[in-house]
Amino acid sequence: MKGKFITFEGPEGAGKTSVLELLMTELSGTEMEMIFTREPGGIHISEKIREVILNKEHTEMDSRTEALLYAAARRQHLVERVVPAIESGKIVLCDRFIDSSLAYQGYARGLGIKEVLSINEFAINGLMPDLTFYFKIDPKVGLQRISKSSEREKNRLDLEELSFHQKVQEGYEKVIDMFPERIVVIDAEKSLEKVVAEVKNKLKKVISF
Amino acid sequence: MKGKFITFEGPEGAGKTSVLELLMTELSGTEMEMIFTREPGGIHISEKIREVILNKEHTEMDSRTEALLYAAARRQHLVERVVPAIESGKIVLCDRFIDSSLAYQGYARGLGIKEVLSINEFAINGLMPDLTFYFKIDPKVGLQRISKSSEREKNRLDLEELSFHQKVQEGYEKVIDMFPERIVVIDAEKSLEKVVAEVKNKLKKVISF
Repeated sequence: MKGKFITFEGPEGAGKTSVLELLMTELSGTEMEMIFTREPGGIHISEKIREVILNKEHTEMDSRTEALLYAAARRQHLVERVVPAIESGKIVLCDRFIDSSLAYQGYARGLGIKEVLSINEFAINGLMPDLTFYFKIDPKVGLQRISKSSEREKNRLDLEELSFHQKVQEGYEKVIDMFPERIVVIDAEKSLEKVVAEVKNKLKKVISF
Repeated sequence: MKGKFITFEGPEGAGKTSVLELLMTELSGTEMEMIFTREPGGIHISEKIREVILNKEHTEMDSRTEALLYAAARRQHLVERVVPAIESGKIVLCDRFIDSSLAYQGYARGLGIKEVLSINEFAINGLMPDLTFYFKIDPKVGLQRISKSSEREKNRLDLEELSFHQKVQEGYEKVIDMFPERIVVIDAEKSLEKVVAEVKNKLKKVISF
């Protein structure tokens, strides 16, 4: 039996991490074999590529170079981590995947959704997720959540303008229009419990538990 | 005045390096400002990417990951080295560019010429060479030249089978059919002097000297 590939998308502050943690706990009693991952996910080559991307000395990094490097790290993580798990029948839950690149780099950074899609299609070579959850939240609410959180360090993205977060949301909306069959929109402003319940309910579209 | 971007392509053993050296010497007396380069060309980010590609410990490197990394290194070299030179009116002579990826990775390695072209189109964002010289040589003659040469160490590619070199040639032929206006085929089995004379003659199509 082949497994499934489920991805989780949304802006900063949408609560993806909390949802995924609670979801993993609630599903741990079932018979499904699940793995959770996010790029670069400890995959050696992907980690090395990320080091090149995130090196603060690389201020001259062109945005297209960066997009190609993200696609390369994605490819290797997919080949080494995701594909073997799916082939052994596991459910793979992945925090961010192709849609993040389309929304952030393709739309918000202005490289073009189609253009960024083309290099990512090369990278994933047909392995699109079976199902994607998009956690929708008002960008203002998302930013407020981030600034309230004492647990997490503010990263570069958190400090960017609200206008950037609004562009990310617009980008995601365009991506959802492109893939309406695959992407399920979840209202992430509801309580954690309600969000997790809704995700579990929709998960039954592709897996039985 | 904008400069020009000229690339040099061909299989191992076609004599590109010798031709480029003699060409640079012969043209050094003219008024043209020329630079010679090849990827990664000392560009810091491109060198770092090459290190990831060439690290011998990375035996698990997927061929699509590799192609994306080559495209990323190409992008950064283009942005930092080639574009500023062209914009300041210089003639840029570049040893290998997009066509090498199409012939080697797209065709000989089997990733697909169209697929590898798509990620490279993203990388170069419209900056195709003004003119490309393809040094054509019988793969057997190319291999004999390499094995005779005492000056150069045999690299991994030199040791591969003749059949691979034949596939590279087939790949280049398909690429030439795709870009007949841009690519000039040079008979690289002629003497070095004759080859350089022919290159100089054809160069007059795009630059005056």
